[in-house]
Amino acid sequence: MRLSELGEFGLLGELARRGLVQRIENDAARFAPDFVVTQDALVEGVHFRLDWTGWRDLGYKAAAVNISDLAASGAEPEALIVSLGLPRETEADDVIELYEGIAEAGVPVLGGDTTSADRLYLSVTALGRASRVPGREGARPGDLLVVTDPLGASAAGFHCLKEGIKSSLVRSHLRPPLRVVEGKELAGTAHAMLDISDGLASDAQRIAERSHCRLVIELERVPIADGVAEIAERVHDDVYSLACAFGEDYELLAAVLEPGRFTVVGRCEEGEGVVFLRDGEPVERSGWDHFRD
Amino acid sequence: MRLSELGEFGLLGELARRGLVQRIENDAARFAPDFVVTQDALVEGVHFRLDWTGWRDLGYKAAAVNISDLAASGAEPEALIVSLGLPRETEADDVIELYEGIAEAGVPVLGGDTTSADRLYLSVTALGRASRVPGREGARPGDLLVVTDPLGASAAGFHCLKEGIKSSLVRSHLRPPLRVVEGKELAGTAHAMLDISDGLASDAQRIAERSHCRLVIELERVPIADGVAEIAERVHDDVYSLACAFGEDYELLAAVLEPGRFTVVGRCEEGEGVVFLRDGEPVERSGWDHFRD
Repeated sequence: MRLSELGEFGLLGELARRGLVQRIENDAARFAPDFVVTQDALVEGVHFRLDWTGWRDLGYKAAAVNISDLAASGAEPEALIVSLGLPRETEADDVIELYEGIAEAGVPVLGGDTTSADRLYLSVTALGRASRVPGREGARPGDLLVVTDPLGASAAGFHCLKEGIKSSLVRSHLRPPLRVVEGKELAGTAHAMLDISDGLASDAQRIAERSHCRLVIELERVPIADGVAEIAERVHDDVYSLACAFGEDYELLAAVLEPGRFTVVGRCEEGEGVVFLRDGEPVERSGWDHFRD
Repeated sequence: MRLSELGEFGLLGELARRGLVQRIENDAARFAPDFVVTQDALVEGVHFRLDWTGWRDLGYKAAAVNISDLAASGAEPEALIVSLGLPRETEADDVIELYEGIAEAGVPVLGGDTTSADRLYLSVTALGRASRVPGREGARPGDLLVVTDPLGASAAGFHCLKEGIKSSLVRSHLRPPLRVVEGKELAGTAHAMLDISDGLASDAQRIAERSHCRLVIELERVPIADGVAEIAERVHDDVYSLACAFGEDYELLAAVLEPGRFTVVGRCEEGEGVVFLRDGEPVERSGWDHFRD
């Protein structure tokens, strides 16, 4: 069977079933007693376009998405390792800019391996130190669901880039936040935690599945970043589609008993799946999510 | 300036000068008090050809070259993280074979990230635990130079592949040794240590430069792997060219006071550079090294 049929998750499942890869249940994998490691690759034309993303922003983002996985594990980032595949005609100044962007994320780069490739291939490994990793399987009925900050800015920024709309939201798309402090704060007591990379709806589903419970999200309580509603209107999309379905906000979603300073968006109940409420009534995801059929 | 002019080492030097990457002086970089990390990428058409290397061998080799860097740091391997870029038409069975090859190296794979790419891109990060890392700068006049096992088998195997000669040496090229036990044994007391990836001559030069001393190697004492002399004759090359210049043997070279069970190939003196002796007389490297003008 070809990879195009099996898909990445199908492949990883098959590898894990054969014991060839440890099944990664969380954002980062544990090693030694106190460390976690995570790794993500960005490929030109697949994950980014150099005409939309400058080299510096690309470097920052590659670092940030990995640091976000550490944050979701309640880890303190210790080091990044960067593997770069580059066309031979790449300008050295562009690569230096890329590394300057990585450096802006504030975690030291311990190693850099550069090889020649047809197109830009950027793989970052992030190492962090964590004591308690909440994971995804501990959410329980009665837990409150919190997010660390408003959502939707990345989606709105993406639409601005695509439609050529000038807006400060573009920066939110290119420069995801680093929720390391929040992650460490929540990790001590959260029953489950992850970073919102695929959208609140999809990521909540992951916790629901692994924790065997139902996550109920009240759309009115979902905090929407400034300016997102206006962009949603301009691009004729639902604001909740941008805030709950697009993803790439890299805020944290956690199931907790005490919300502390974070925003409650819903709760955990007996049952399964993710339910969205509007004015207290369940709404189908297709009612607001334009990415969903 | 383009990368093709600056080169990988030029680029890394420039990045380190600007503080964007920590200068990697050894095979692996230290992080936290007791850990080392190393990373190497293999790109199809640059580092390997799939018509010479099967998927399983490729997986093994990608793991082995990284484990070798850990061995050179006296580290116990803890985990591998694998980043794969693959054309969409790749057969899933081939990828499973690749991972089976990685598994044969005996270090658990903690994570696997797979993305689509034009050609096969394989980046492995290896994590290990080390107490004392000898590094490259501590060799002193009076030290003996030892290698962990005979050299030249990888070069001979490469020639066999290239010339279509059937020989068990092919396996030595495709399946580099793992000198983890030897690395840990030597790390306690060695003044300098590295793995022979670029050939004894080039790698000895690295220790000479960093330790500010002269390394004197007696060609007659260099242990030659079985069958290498015969292949050297068949391909009209000097046996020492295969054993000291080709590289990819992945044996360890160490500067020590007591050789123990390892083979002495020379010594360390006041001075600089690497000197080769034959019958006690200095010989120019060009006299035996056909890779060198």
